[in-house]
Amino acid sequence: MTPQIPHIIIGRLPLYLRALTRLKKDGYNYASSRELGKLLDISAAQIRKDLSHFGELGKRGKGYEIEFLTSKLNQILNTDTVWDMIVIGAGDLGSGLVRYKGFLNRGFRVAAIFDIDSQKIGRKIGDLVIKDKREMCDFVAKNGIQIAVLAIPAEFAQEVIDDLVVVGITAILNYAPIYIKTPDGVQIEHIDPAVHLQKLSYFLN
Amino acid sequence: MTPQIPHIIIGRLPLYLRALTRLKKDGYNYASSRELGKLLDISAAQIRKDLSHFGELGKRGKGYEIEFLTSKLNQILNTDTVWDMIVIGAGDLGSGLVRYKGFLNRGFRVAAIFDIDSQKIGRKIGDLVIKDKREMCDFVAKNGIQIAVLAIPAEFAQEVIDDLVVVGITAILNYAPIYIKTPDGVQIEHIDPAVHLQKLSYFLN
Repeated sequence: MTPQIPHIIIGRLPLYLRALTRLKKDGYNYASSRELGKLLDISAAQIRKDLSHFGELGKRGKGYEIEFLTSKLNQILNTDTVWDMIVIGAGDLGSGLVRYKGFLNRGFRVAAIFDIDSQKIGRKIGDLVIKDKREMCDFVAKNGIQIAVLAIPAEFAQEVIDDLVVVGITAILNYAPIYIKTPDGVQIEHIDPAVHLQKLSYFLN
Repeated sequence: MTPQIPHIIIGRLPLYLRALTRLKKDGYNYASSRELGKLLDISAAQIRKDLSHFGELGKRGKGYEIEFLTSKLNQILNTDTVWDMIVIGAGDLGSGLVRYKGFLNRGFRVAAIFDIDSQKIGRKIGDLVIKDKREMCDFVAKNGIQIAVLAIPAEFAQEVIDDLVVVGITAILNYAPIYIKTPDGVQIEHIDPAVHLQKLSYFLN
């Protein structure tokens, strides 16, 4: 692993992976940077430059062998294994994440979901029983969980994260529309639909 | 409006807007590019360069007046008004989007939600009654809706979008994990949690 690779490049690798999966499904064995770029709206030169950080992955004139590059990217992103993660918040969004079929084949599995609402605790979502949030820290520590997904209101997010970091969470996917302080070594990604909508509305008239 | 501004800059403006809202809430009247950068993990130089595309928005030594810059960014992003949008798919995710409180004060309102499931059609989510998807195109055309949010399985996404584009949708927020072809002039943004998780897992060991 080359630790000095800029985060912005790392952030594009999952997109390359997704495009490769699509091309494979469409029956292709090789993909050129141009084809990938067309799917992703990223320039071919940018893609070649990004991938060149990880060695000679393509063949001049033939492009990238899809199976090889897929396996290489999964190795780089540590998704050649399956990571257990927890979801906090069993509202619509949390429930949707538990039921979502697209995680397992991309390296992730929801191991448990937690809520504070006694009306929800004990109910089932798919194969999982909603657990009491008071069991969250124990569960993380015992099972060595590193990834947490926050699907709770903004006002509770900082407190929950502070607790989670103490017991070993180092990666957070945050759906709460708030900025959150995390210590060094803890990575956080935000998903905020309004941010995407505001980019779209720029083009409206 | 300056149409030649790169999409990547437009994509950062909603983040600046969100950070400004946070600083305002914390009691600040002015924000420096350094303060904004710290909240967003973007360099101060990048922020100054991005904002300079839209005129002289800050004062040397004082930074940006939060209220002024907020109003200016809302004007640039067309979010100084409220846009009606439709949601397609009344599953967990679609329901969550209808109930989400964070849209209205950021320029958006869910005007209707549609599904194909006769078990769901007619039920209420918050104040909205789930409509039959067969009414979708009529509704869009009659109400001049331009924004659609897709919360449906991947296999139906392309077909629904093809229909929507014909009746006037020009902005799409897509939650289906699939690449979608859209004609020129139609903007699409993708939200895919696995892409964010794969970026996070790079840092795990």
